[in-house]
Amino acid sequence: MTGLADLPLREELRGRSPYGAPQRDVAVRLNTNENAHPVPAEVVDAVAEAVRAELAGLNRYPDRDAVALRAALADYLGHGLGVDQVWAANGSNEVQQQLLQAFAGPGRAALGFGPAYSMHPLLALGTGTRWIGATRGADFDLTPAHAAAQVAAHRPDVVLVCAPNNPTGTALAPATLAAILDAAPGIVVVDEAYAEFARAGQRSALELLPGRPRLVVTRTMSKAFGFAGGRLGYLAADAAVVEAVQLVRLPYHLSTLTQAAGRAALAHRAALLGTVEAVKEQRDRIVATLRRRGHPVADSDANFVLFGVAGDQARVWERLVARGVLVRDVGLAGWLRVTAGTPAETDAFLGALEEIA
Amino acid sequence: MTGLADLPLREELRGRSPYGAPQRDVAVRLNTNENAHPVPAEVVDAVAEAVRAELAGLNRYPDRDAVALRAALADYLGHGLGVDQVWAANGSNEVQQQLLQAFAGPGRAALGFGPAYSMHPLLALGTGTRWIGATRGADFDLTPAHAAAQVAAHRPDVVLVCAPNNPTGTALAPATLAAILDAAPGIVVVDEAYAEFARAGQRSALELLPGRPRLVVTRTMSKAFGFAGGRLGYLAADAAVVEAVQLVRLPYHLSTLTQAAGRAALAHRAALLGTVEAVKEQRDRIVATLRRRGHPVADSDANFVLFGVAGDQARVWERLVARGVLVRDVGLAGWLRVTAGTPAETDAFLGALEEIA
Repeated sequence: MTGLADLPLREELRGRSPYGAPQRDVAVRLNTNENAHPVPAEVVDAVAEAVRAELAGLNRYPDRDAVALRAALADYLGHGLGVDQVWAANGSNEVQQQLLQAFAGPGRAALGFGPAYSMHPLLALGTGTRWIGATRGADFDLTPAHAAAQVAAHRPDVVLVCAPNNPTGTALAPATLAAILDAAPGIVVVDEAYAEFARAGQRSALELLPGRPRLVVTRTMSKAFGFAGGRLGYLAADAAVVEAVQLVRLPYHLSTLTQAAGRAALAHRAALLGTVEAVKEQRDRIVATLRRRGHPVADSDANFVLFGVAGDQARVWERLVARGVLVRDVGLAGWLRVTAGTPAETDAFLGALEEIA
Repeated sequence: MTGLADLPLREELRGRSPYGAPQRDVAVRLNTNENAHPVPAEVVDAVAEAVRAELAGLNRYPDRDAVALRAALADYLGHGLGVDQVWAANGSNEVQQQLLQAFAGPGRAALGFGPAYSMHPLLALGTGTRWIGATRGADFDLTPAHAAAQVAAHRPDVVLVCAPNNPTGTALAPATLAAILDAAPGIVVVDEAYAEFARAGQRSALELLPGRPRLVVTRTMSKAFGFAGGRLGYLAADAAVVEAVQLVRLPYHLSTLTQAAGRAALAHRAALLGTVEAVKEQRDRIVATLRRRGHPVADSDANFVLFGVAGDQARVWERLVARGVLVRDVGLAGWLRVTAGTPAETDAFLGALEEIA
């Protein structure tokens, strides 16, 4: 029988496993930062109708430029953004892959501040981009000086920085982003996948776009919108950045179904985003409860919480699974990440963790 | 104002335009090899229902491995293929991009026999793969000796060969494929996007898969299935090849909507593929009519026809547009490509071309 080792696979892929959170068949799944709330009935109806209206014409290719969808995304983002400053793809992973294809790739480098979103180095790997694993401080903080020094030392073609960070959940300090923007010689991508969950007073990098053509903000409908199954990520940037990714995007990359579903969802965004406050309440409850119990807990502006556990986190992870609760072991010794779900899911998680401790 | 030239774009992308057939707002669009027949009502109903059933749960990510869809595709392909030998993505472009990411990429090379599908060199460009533009003979033929000699001379990591070829439409001779397989040191991808339109007696490379772990056959639902807007491409190969592309695929690359729509469409494939014979009739009518009129015409096993014109083909293209008929100028001096559509579209095309001549 043929195995992977018998094929002429690229050397750097040998011995690797496909990316993805380990799945277990348990009742409470708090491992992939999904929105626990189902799509509301009014949105289901609207999306179903919008999709149905396209089906007879599915023999034709989609709008290659997804103009109507991008206009709806620009309208949602506000900040005076026009359709020419917004681009969409099948998840923000694909958006970021396109950015690396255009601005990084072979002979170039991208830098991120770990621990951060673990797909970023994999996107570099997949696009032949050299990855520079810059670091955060103790407690995962990222000071302006530390961030700027690393960017200045490596001069990467692309910086990828999460705001708030994943898996820590903590907002990116405006002074740190300013320092990165000042130090970076190339493109700076701010991954705002969880921006809608920010605590009061946090600001989006969208505000900084005017006059900064090398700044790119990526977003997704997978988290706050609760539209993970729809696979729709997007970016906002200078129109020239959008022109650039159009040189590497696959033609007709975004299906007619995705475009129609995305437009309908955005037209009903108030209903979809109506769960954000409920999720934030559970997040804050998890943070407060775990701190009360003595766990170290990172500040969270996202829909998940990184918390410290005594001993081996992999063992705690298994014991939570045994109690029907699936969280994420992101490979940080002594830490686990839990998604803020429904009140009942929070109950289950907090209860199971208390039993273990 | 910022322009693309002000951004740190990769050098090899400078001065390029996004890939895509020029579009014009005319009545008869025969330029992108779409299936002219709308999706039948029974399929519209089935897909609409299948999609609607998924919408409430769209807050969850899709099945990362699209197992049910891949099983349906394996069942359609037959040849004893199992789900572990089939992989799907957003169009066969994405499938081929993943193949290049896994088996080609920086420091490696891919080879194709031009004129062929013009996305192949662009996929190489986007993945940092060196592209080797091998050639066909006069009249676009590809003999076993000529193909094998070029593969042996360049020893590419990946060979991409279309069967039937695009834009010529002509089947790949079994002896030529055998010669390529013998000569190729790496992966051989046979792009069978138009396989379902083959004339009687043509055979698919699927037959050759057993015992050939370096052979990959790619297919699409965009052409014969008339499902271009659904964006669903797939491959069949040894299970180890599927394992390999899973190392580079983006997680959750295929939306819940695409998976559900694809499954429903495959469950009604008899209805969808019911247009294939009608399309082949129009194709054969175009070939026969143009030959009768003295045009050079390539043999076609696809849903399009490459035909010669007197003088500058760009000028003929414009004159056809002026008469409301959009065909494709693929950049071959003296040749144009026309998609076989409905009988009325064939009438319009043949009439407009006769007026010009």
